[in-house]
Amino acid sequence: MHTIEDTLAAIRPLDEAAMRDARDLQARLTKPPGSLGVLEELSVRLAGLAGTCPPPLPEPAAVAVFAADHGVHARGVTPWPQEVTAQMVANFLAGGAVVNAFARQVGATVTVVDVGVATALPEGLADAPGLLDRKIAPGTADMTAGPAMTPEQARAAVETGIAVARDLVDGGARALLTGDMGIANTTASAALVAAFTGLPPAEVTGRGTGIDDATHARKIGVIEAALARHGLTGGAPEGADPLAVLAAVGGLEHAALAGFVLGAAALRVPVVLDGVIAGSAALAAAALAPDALGACVAGHRSVEPGHSATVAHLGLRPLVDLELRLGEGTGALLALPLVQGAVRVLHEVATFDAAGVSDKPSQV
Amino acid sequence: MHTIEDTLAAIRPLDEAAMRDARDLQARLTKPPGSLGVLEELSVRLAGLAGTCPPPLPEPAAVAVFAADHGVHARGVTPWPQEVTAQMVANFLAGGAVVNAFARQVGATVTVVDVGVATALPEGLADAPGLLDRKIAPGTADMTAGPAMTPEQARAAVETGIAVARDLVDGGARALLTGDMGIANTTASAALVAAFTGLPPAEVTGRGTGIDDATHARKIGVIEAALARHGLTGGAPEGADPLAVLAAVGGLEHAALAGFVLGAAALRVPVVLDGVIAGSAALAAAALAPDALGACVAGHRSVEPGHSATVAHLGLRPLVDLELRLGEGTGALLALPLVQGAVRVLHEVATFDAAGVSDKPSQV
Repeated sequence: MHTIEDTLAAIRPLDEAAMRDARDLQARLTKPPGSLGVLEELSVRLAGLAGTCPPPLPEPAAVAVFAADHGVHARGVTPWPQEVTAQMVANFLAGGAVVNAFARQVGATVTVVDVGVATALPEGLADAPGLLDRKIAPGTADMTAGPAMTPEQARAAVETGIAVARDLVDGGARALLTGDMGIANTTASAALVAAFTGLPPAEVTGRGTGIDDATHARKIGVIEAALARHGLTGGAPEGADPLAVLAAVGGLEHAALAGFVLGAAALRVPVVLDGVIAGSAALAAAALAPDALGACVAGHRSVEPGHSATVAHLGLRPLVDLELRLGEGTGALLALPLVQGAVRVLHEVATFDAAGVSDKPSQV
Repeated sequence: MHTIEDTLAAIRPLDEAAMRDARDLQARLTKPPGSLGVLEELSVRLAGLAGTCPPPLPEPAAVAVFAADHGVHARGVTPWPQEVTAQMVANFLAGGAVVNAFARQVGATVTVVDVGVATALPEGLADAPGLLDRKIAPGTADMTAGPAMTPEQARAAVETGIAVARDLVDGGARALLTGDMGIANTTASAALVAAFTGLPPAEVTGRGTGIDDATHARKIGVIEAALARHGLTGGAPEGADPLAVLAAVGGLEHAALAGFVLGAAALRVPVVLDGVIAGSAALAAAALAPDALGACVAGHRSVEPGHSATVAHLGLRPLVDLELRLGEGTGALLALPLVQGAVRVLHEVATFDAAGVSDKPSQV
């Protein structure tokens, strides 16, 4: 599984028999039927993904933080300097960011994948453990002036994401989590959401790190201009190549994340999506392979409006909804114990029969 | 700290200086200000509870599952036989219930406290590790015929909850979680919610384990009758003694849970509330000591309508909202890593200065 084509060919629908087994098992466990709500359906879906009931416990877990910069930064879509991308990569590698704290809390590893950081990393970090140098370009080109990526770059980024998923699973991971870092990446995300859902940029463009009204208005205008430049106003035309859409307005980390999702789906390993960056990448992945959605768990609902539009479009229900807007993988990490708990129930909870608990109502 | 009076006297408001320190620290951490949403305010509140910033990490964590039976069971409010309470206690002690699976997932201990199980536990369980025999009575009396508890029973149950909180904290716990088991306990919960909020029983009475329309209608009628019997129709009168309300329509586990909340607050240790049973007990605790709410974290939002009414009344925002209606402590356990993550951020995340990350926007 190295190329996009190999990977797409390996993605299968959820296994109906395993899902039926999981539903039957849930009904026999010592709890009122349905009382675990959303987590019951999640456990059923993960059984379908694995093709067996119970599915493997989704642990150990690994976050891949795909980091890259964006040519559209030059259009004034954020007040943060581009150098912050590299600075935050250094922070991740030093273990000092929120993604690291949350990963320690839930027992996940953090791998940083540089697919396109524009500025040099601080000295001495090139060989840091936990960093994969997979740089495809020092950031994308400005999407308002031409495609953000060449077709070759977009393909290389997707295949990098596939390879990272494969390597993490080869290394033992049984749950993958998406992470991201890239100043200006909510601009590329909103452009992707608009292109894949057909919604207007004004509806799906948020305030990212917390921009003011003037910057927000400019950001929407930039996205409208980019969509117009690439014939994506009102959404990508029927039959458009999802890779071409990614190349036109996406980021290198979006393309890599799309590959990461496809890789997870091909390997039948759940992938917990973080917020709007991962969500917009999942739109691309789902456009390439609708069955890839079977592997996707929406970790949380971001306050970014494009994210709610995305999960609605994909039919996913976020597990955590706490007004986060940080990225990095933080929302996915908070959801991980919920996903693990949902599956653990199928492994460890006693049935009515085995526990000697009455499952038949008595006379009322 | 043994009596209710000692405990109430030890409960203090949140420490404003520690909260200010926590807000200042949050603003200097390497993330956009406010980007952790609800978890930032939670971390601030827990600093205020501890009286220091950062507050202690809320681990290790301990769930106390208070188990008891209900005289109102005889009124036909549920199809499940009363024996299920004892059977589920046995299941907890064998590690086979969902509360056990979730506790293992998040690294919490489970202690079962029998404050009023009516039927005998299966043979050989009396000395099981993890069981505390603190039985006050073999279930409550029927609240429609008289008070569910005598004043002495209610007081003993509250003080048992206080003692359990104290003993768990003495044993090292730095987060307490509420659990409960008791067939018919959503009936007592709805009666308490109606009494403490003044809302009509029809608005706060749910389907518990999943009862049919006829049973639901009967359940509402039973609660209305009980409230009328005790002069609680339309809510407890101004100045009513919360202990008397608990005694009138509560359960032994509700009274113990109210004590558990008060004990946690007096010890300045956070207590993560599960669903409607804990919430209705917290209403009693807050009526006794409004500052006890500073220690309370609403773990999840139950589908029970009385629970939404409760958290609205208490001004708490549930952390998890996944349509659970199981009880046992399961919703509190799912929230635990979120609480721990919120505090961990204050301990482990680097500041902009320390990490060399730009916190000043550049020119746009």
